[in-house]
Amino acid sequence: MFCHSRKGLVWRIALVACLGFSAMRADDGMWTFDNPPLKQLKERYGFVPTQEWLDHVRLASVRFMDGGSGAFVSPNGLVLTNHHVARGQLQKMSSKQKDYVADGFYARTMQEEIKCPDLELNVLVSMEDVTARVHGAITSDMSPKQALDARKAITARISKEAKEKTGLRADIVSLYQGNEYWLYCYKKYTDVRLVMAPEMGIAFFGGDADNFTFPRHDIDMTFFRVYEDGKPVASRHYLHWNNKGAGDGELVFVSGHPGSTNRLQTYDQLLLQRDQTYPERIKGLQRRLMLLRDYAKGGTEQARQASNQIFGLENSIKALSGEYAGLLDKELMAKKAAEDKNLRDRVNADPQLKEKYGWAWDSLRAAVNRDGATAKARGYKSIKVKLYTFASQLVQAAEELKKPNGERLSQYQDANLESTKFRLFSPAPVYPGLDELRLADALQEALDGLGADDPFIKTVLDGKSPAEAARALVEGTKMGDPAVRRKLFDGGENAIAASTDPMVVLARRLAPTAKKEREWSERHIAGITARAGEKVAEARFAVYGKNTNPDATFTLRLSYGTVTGYPMNGTVAPPKTTFFGLFDRAYSFDNKGAYKLPQRYVDNMSRLDLSTPLDFVSTCDIIGGNSGSPVINTKGEYVGLIFDGNIESLPGRFLYSETTNRAVAVHSAAIVEVLRKLYDAGVLADELEGNVL
Amino acid sequence: MFCHSRKGLVWRIALVACLGFSAMRADDGMWTFDNPPLKQLKERYGFVPTQEWLDHVRLASVRFMDGGSGAFVSPNGLVLTNHHVARGQLQKMSSKQKDYVADGFYARTMQEEIKCPDLELNVLVSMEDVTARVHGAITSDMSPKQALDARKAITARISKEAKEKTGLRADIVSLYQGNEYWLYCYKKYTDVRLVMAPEMGIAFFGGDADNFTFPRHDIDMTFFRVYEDGKPVASRHYLHWNNKGAGDGELVFVSGHPGSTNRLQTYDQLLLQRDQTYPERIKGLQRRLMLLRDYAKGGTEQARQASNQIFGLENSIKALSGEYAGLLDKELMAKKAAEDKNLRDRVNADPQLKEKYGWAWDSLRAAVNRDGATAKARGYKSIKVKLYTFASQLVQAAEELKKPNGERLSQYQDANLESTKFRLFSPAPVYPGLDELRLADALQEALDGLGADDPFIKTVLDGKSPAEAARALVEGTKMGDPAVRRKLFDGGENAIAASTDPMVVLARRLAPTAKKEREWSERHIAGITARAGEKVAEARFAVYGKNTNPDATFTLRLSYGTVTGYPMNGTVAPPKTTFFGLFDRAYSFDNKGAYKLPQRYVDNMSRLDLSTPLDFVSTCDIIGGNSGSPVINTKGEYVGLIFDGNIESLPGRFLYSETTNRAVAVHSAAIVEVLRKLYDAGVLADELEGNVL
Repeated sequence: MFCHSRKGLVWRIALVACLGFSAMRADDGMWTFDNPPLKQLKERYGFVPTQEWLDHVRLASVRFMDGGSGAFVSPNGLVLTNHHVARGQLQKMSSKQKDYVADGFYARTMQEEIKCPDLELNVLVSMEDVTARVHGAITSDMSPKQALDARKAITARISKEAKEKTGLRADIVSLYQGNEYWLYCYKKYTDVRLVMAPEMGIAFFGGDADNFTFPRHDIDMTFFRVYEDGKPVASRHYLHWNNKGAGDGELVFVSGHPGSTNRLQTYDQLLLQRDQTYPERIKGLQRRLMLLRDYAKGGTEQARQASNQIFGLENSIKALSGEYAGLLDKELMAKKAAEDKNLRDRVNADPQLKEKYGWAWDSLRAAVNRDGATAKARGYKSIKVKLYTFASQLVQAAEELKKPNGERLSQYQDANLESTKFRLFSPAPVYPGLDELRLADALQEALDGLGADDPFIKTVLDGKSPAEAARALVEGTKMGDPAVRRKLFDGGENAIAASTDPMVVLARRLAPTAKKEREWSERHIAGITARAGEKVAEARFAVYGKNTNPDATFTLRLSYGTVTGYPMNGTVAPPKTTFFGLFDRAYSFDNKGAYKLPQRYVDNMSRLDLSTPLDFVSTCDIIGGNSGSPVINTKGEYVGLIFDGNIESLPGRFLYSETTNRAVAVHSAAIVEVLRKLYDAGVLADELEGNVL
Repeated sequence: MFCHSRKGLVWRIALVACLGFSAMRADDGMWTFDNPPLKQLKERYGFVPTQEWLDHVRLASVRFMDGGSGAFVSPNGLVLTNHHVARGQLQKMSSKQKDYVADGFYARTMQEEIKCPDLELNVLVSMEDVTARVHGAITSDMSPKQALDARKAITARISKEAKEKTGLRADIVSLYQGNEYWLYCYKKYTDVRLVMAPEMGIAFFGGDADNFTFPRHDIDMTFFRVYEDGKPVASRHYLHWNNKGAGDGELVFVSGHPGSTNRLQTYDQLLLQRDQTYPERIKGLQRRLMLLRDYAKGGTEQARQASNQIFGLENSIKALSGEYAGLLDKELMAKKAAEDKNLRDRVNADPQLKEKYGWAWDSLRAAVNRDGATAKARGYKSIKVKLYTFASQLVQAAEELKKPNGERLSQYQDANLESTKFRLFSPAPVYPGLDELRLADALQEALDGLGADDPFIKTVLDGKSPAEAARALVEGTKMGDPAVRRKLFDGGENAIAASTDPMVVLARRLAPTAKKEREWSERHIAGITARAGEKVAEARFAVYGKNTNPDATFTLRLSYGTVTGYPMNGTVAPPKTTFFGLFDRAYSFDNKGAYKLPQRYVDNMSRLDLSTPLDFVSTCDIIGGNSGSPVINTKGEYVGLIFDGNIESLPGRFLYSETTNRAVAVHSAAIVEVLRKLYDAGVLADELEGNVL
C-alpha cells in the first residue's frame, strides 16, 4: 500500500538526493504545481491543462498528515481516501467492543458521523518561491553547521510571518536538494469525521500477499467529511465524479503527496543503501513483526490492538524488499552508475565546473561513510514506543520553547507548534501491554548491540534487565493520559523538572546525550550532506539544464500517464480487473484466509454487475504517500482512487520504468456499485454522483 | 502448450543426456512404469500404488503419435485429450467451408462422429528388458560407427520378431543413454473419430500471451472415440470420472508421454545449447513465423490454412524462450556446473572409474564441437515443406526397402513400416500456396547461408532464383495427391527412377549427398555421442547408484505431485482458477482479441455455476508431449486434463524446481459443467460420469 510512513523519513533524511536526467523519460516524474510538465503533455498527448484546471485540481487535493492523500468529492466537505490511510484513525476510534477497522462503518446521517481523534488534513492554498531570501541568509564563509543554523533561522522566520499574516499552516519546502526553497501555505482542518469505511476484508482483500501487486481486487476506500465551526465545509473545489472511469489508453493524472524518492542520489549513496541501510532496516522490521505476531496470538483483543502495527510492518517490509530488489538489480545499478559517472565526467571536463562542484562527490562520500559507521548505534538509542515518545517530546518541548523561534527544532517553531500539540494531546488510546513488549525488545536489542557498559544502556536499564526496566517504565507512567500530558506541557520547564513519572525521568536523563548526538550528526553528516548535495544538484542544472522535477517531499505533486496493461510473468496484465476477478480470487482460495470475502459480498453477489471494473492501472509515477490520491481525467473528473503500486514499481524509488511501473487504483464505478448495491448507501453515492445531498 | 513436436527431436538428437542426482529432489521425475517411485511415494505421501493400480493406469493411457497424450474415459473407447493435440487432425478435417479448429464440433450420435485422416494412437501393452541382447551384439573392438550399425541391426531384429509374434507395434526404447534397452509393445489404433471439440476461443483462451502461464482459463479438450473393425473398442481399462477433482494439497499423478528432457547433459553440452542451438533455433522459428503471419494476412482462407502452423511456431518459440531463459539463468547454470564437476571429480578420484569413464567428457566435448560447427549448414540442407518431404520419403523408402531389415533407417524397418505408410498415404489436404512460400523462403535462407557455389544450392536452384525454383517445384508436383504417392511407393525403385515429378527428381538428386552427410554425422557425432553419453551415464550409476529415472523419450511415464499454488510476481498463484476468472480475464480486456469468449459463453453465462473450478496446478513433473495426459487421484480416478506447464516450468527441461514448477490442467468439473450447460452435450457428460451410454 502506498501510504507514507513518516517514520521512514528519519532514516532517509541523511540520504539526500541529487537531480537531473530521468525527467526526459516518458510519463516519468512527480511534478510541482508551479512547474507542471506542460511541454511533455503537449508533445506526447496533445493536451495542455489550463491554469484554472491546475488550480482546481490543487485545491481539491488533500494531504493526510497521517501519511497519505485524498480529495474533495462533493461540495459538502466529503473527502475520499484509502481505507489503509484512514486505518490509523479507525483503529483509534475502535475498542474491544467495536472494531471499525475490521467491520467498517457507515453514517446514514451527518449526525452519525464520528470525529477522528487526531487527524489533520491540509489543502495547499498558495506557493511562493523564497529561494532568494533563504540563500541570502547564508554566506560563503559559514561552516556547514553555521549554514544549517542560519537556514533554520530564516525559514522559521518566513514561516512565522506567513502564519501570522494568513492564519494558514506555513511550511518551508526544500526542493532540488536546497536549490529552491518554497513557502507552502495550507488550509488546515482538524475536525474530520468518519462517514463510511468498508470492511477490511474488501479494503485489503488478499492481504499482505496481494499487497503491492496487480491484478488486484481491493476496494480500499474510506470517506470522511471535513467540518469547520461544527458545520461541513463548503468545498467549492471538489472533483466531479465520472462513473465511467478511464478507458484503456486514456491519459490520466494523479494529484497527491508522494513521500520521498531517491532517484538522484550519487552512486556512493546508493551503495550505502544497498549494502547497509536496506538489509539492516528490513531485518529490524522483521524482528518487530515477529514480536507483534506473537503478541497478537494472545487473543482477539491483542490481535485487534496489534493489527494496525502489523499491517504497517508487513507493508513496510514488502515495500522495502521491493526497493531493495531494485538496488540488487545489476541492470538498474549499472544505469545509476553510468548516470553518476556521466555527470561527474562532464563536471570534471570543465575547469570552472570542476572547481565549483568537483569536490562535492567526495564530500558526500565522506558523509555517507560516517553515516554508515554510526547509523546502527544511533538506531539503538532511538526508543520508538508511544509512551516514551510522549515523554521525550514533553521534555524536548520544555527545552526548545525557551529558545528564540528561529533556533528551535522545526516541530516546536511557532508555525508548527499547533500541529505538534494536536498530536501530542490526542485522545487516542495507548496499549501499555503492547508498548511494554516492544520496549523490552528494543532495550534487549540495544543491550546486545551496545554492550552493558554503554552509557545509554546504563542510563536506561539502571541495573535492571530489559524486561524489568520496560515493565517498571510502563507500569509507572501516566503518559497514556492526554490530560496528564497537557498539564505537563502547560507546566513547562518547572513541571518537567519536577515530574517523577518514570518515562519523563528517563527522557530527561537521556536528553543531554541525545542533543549532543543530534548536533554531532548535524555537524558531520546532515550539514555536509546538505551542502554537498546542493552542489551536485546545482551541477546537474549547470550540465543538463533545469527541465525536471524534484525528488518527492510529501508535498503536492502532479503525475500523468496512460491507463494500460503491461508484460507480466510470461503474459500480459490487463489494464483493469472486474468483480468477476474478485470472486475468482476468493474462490480460487476457497474463500479463506486473506481471500475470505465479507459476508455481504457472498450473500448479495447476484445484485452486482460482475463485469463492472474494479481496479485499474496506469503509468502514473507515484510512491508511498500517494495512497488516497485521486486519478483525474483531462476534464478534471474523478475516475479512480490510487491505493498502491505494483511490485514492479517498487524500484521506482530509484529509477522509474514505464514498461512495467504501474499505479494501482480503485475504479470509480466499483465504488458506486458497492455503495448502492451492497452497503445500502445510496445517499452517499448520490452525493458523489452529484445529486443534491 | 505441452504438446511434443516430433520435429524438435531432430535437433535434440545429438544432445544426449546423462543421468543421476536430480532424482533425490521431491516430486521430481518422469518414471517408467517398470520402476515407479514407490519409495518416494511411501516416504513423502504414505501411499503405495498396487501393481494392479499401475497396470490399470498404464492401459488406460494413450499415446497420440501426433505428439501428445490422452486417456480412455469410458468403456466405449472414448478418449480425452487436448484441443491443441487434436488440432492437427481438426485442421486436416477442415476446409474453406467448415473450420473445425475455430468453431468446434459435437457428434450427437456415433453416426455423426468424423474419422481422422491420419491419427495413430498407441496403448502400451507390455515392456520387456532387452538390454542384455542389445549389449551382447556389441563388442569392445568395434568402432563407434560399427557399434551404431550393430545396435541398429539387433534392435531391428528384436522389433521384427516381436511384431510378428504379437501383431503389436514393437518399439525399442533406449533409456539412461543406452544403459538400458526395452522392448515396448503397443496396441495401435488408426480408426479414431472425432466426438467433440469446443471452439478454439475457449480451448486456447488468452492465446499466445497466456500460453505457458498460470492463472489460466482454458478448456483445452477434445474427445475422440477409438474404433476397431467399425465398432467402438471395448476399453475395459478406462479412468473413472471424479467430478470433484483434486483439492488443495492432494496427491495426484500424471500418466503420459513426455517428449524429451535434457536434465543430465554434461556442462559442455549445455553450453552449446545456450550459446548456439537455442538462439539460432529461436531465430529460425521467428523467421518462419513472420512469413506465415504475412501469408495469413492474405484473407480468411489463408489465415485458416496457416493457423495451425502459426500456433505451432508461437508455441515452440515461447517454450524455447522459456527454456533458453533457464540456460541464461546464472543460478541454474551454476548448479549444473557443480553437478557435472562433482561427478567428474569423483570419477577422477578413483583410478578404476577414471580409466573406464574419465575420457568420456572430452569425447563428448569433441562431438559437441563438431556438432556446433556443422549444425547450421546441415540445417540449411534440410527442406521441411510437406510436398518435398513426401517425395524425399518415397525416394528413401525405395532405397531402404532394398536392404535387409536390420540395415534400414528405423522408420522403414518392418516393425515401423505400417506407421510410416499410414502417414505417407494420409488423405489430409496439402496447401500448395503455403508450401511454395515456405520453400522459397527456406531456399533463400540456404542461398544466403551457403552461397551460390555450394553444390546443394546448385542442385536445388539449378540456375533459378529461390522463388522461381519453389514455384516450379510446387506447380509441377503431384505429391499432394495420396493416390500418386501410393502408386510411386508401390512401384518401388523403378517407379521412383522413372518419375519426372520435379519434387521426386530433386529428392533423387539430393539423396546421395544427404546419405553421405548422414553417415558422416553418424560416424563423427551421433556414434561418439552415443558411446560417450552411455559412459557418463554408467559413471553416474557407479558413483550415485541407480535410483533414478531416465530422461524423457516420448514413452509412457508416471509423475506425481501435489495440487498447490506457488509464489508468483510478488504474491501467490492459487491452486486453481474458477469460471469467475474466465469472465474476469475476458472483460479485463473488454472481451476482445485473444480474450474474446465464444458467443455461447457470453449468452449463457447465467446457466453456469461460476465458482466451479476451471484450471488447476500441481507439482507433477511434465514436459512437452504430456499434453492431454490425465491427472489421476490415488483411487485411479480422472480428476484433470493436463494441457500446459507454467512459465516457471520451462527451465525444467534442464532442472526441475518444486518451488515454482507447475503442471496446468483443466479441472474435471469444468469439463462436465460446460458439456451439460453450454454444449447441450449431456449424453457425452453422462458417458463420462458413468451413466450407461
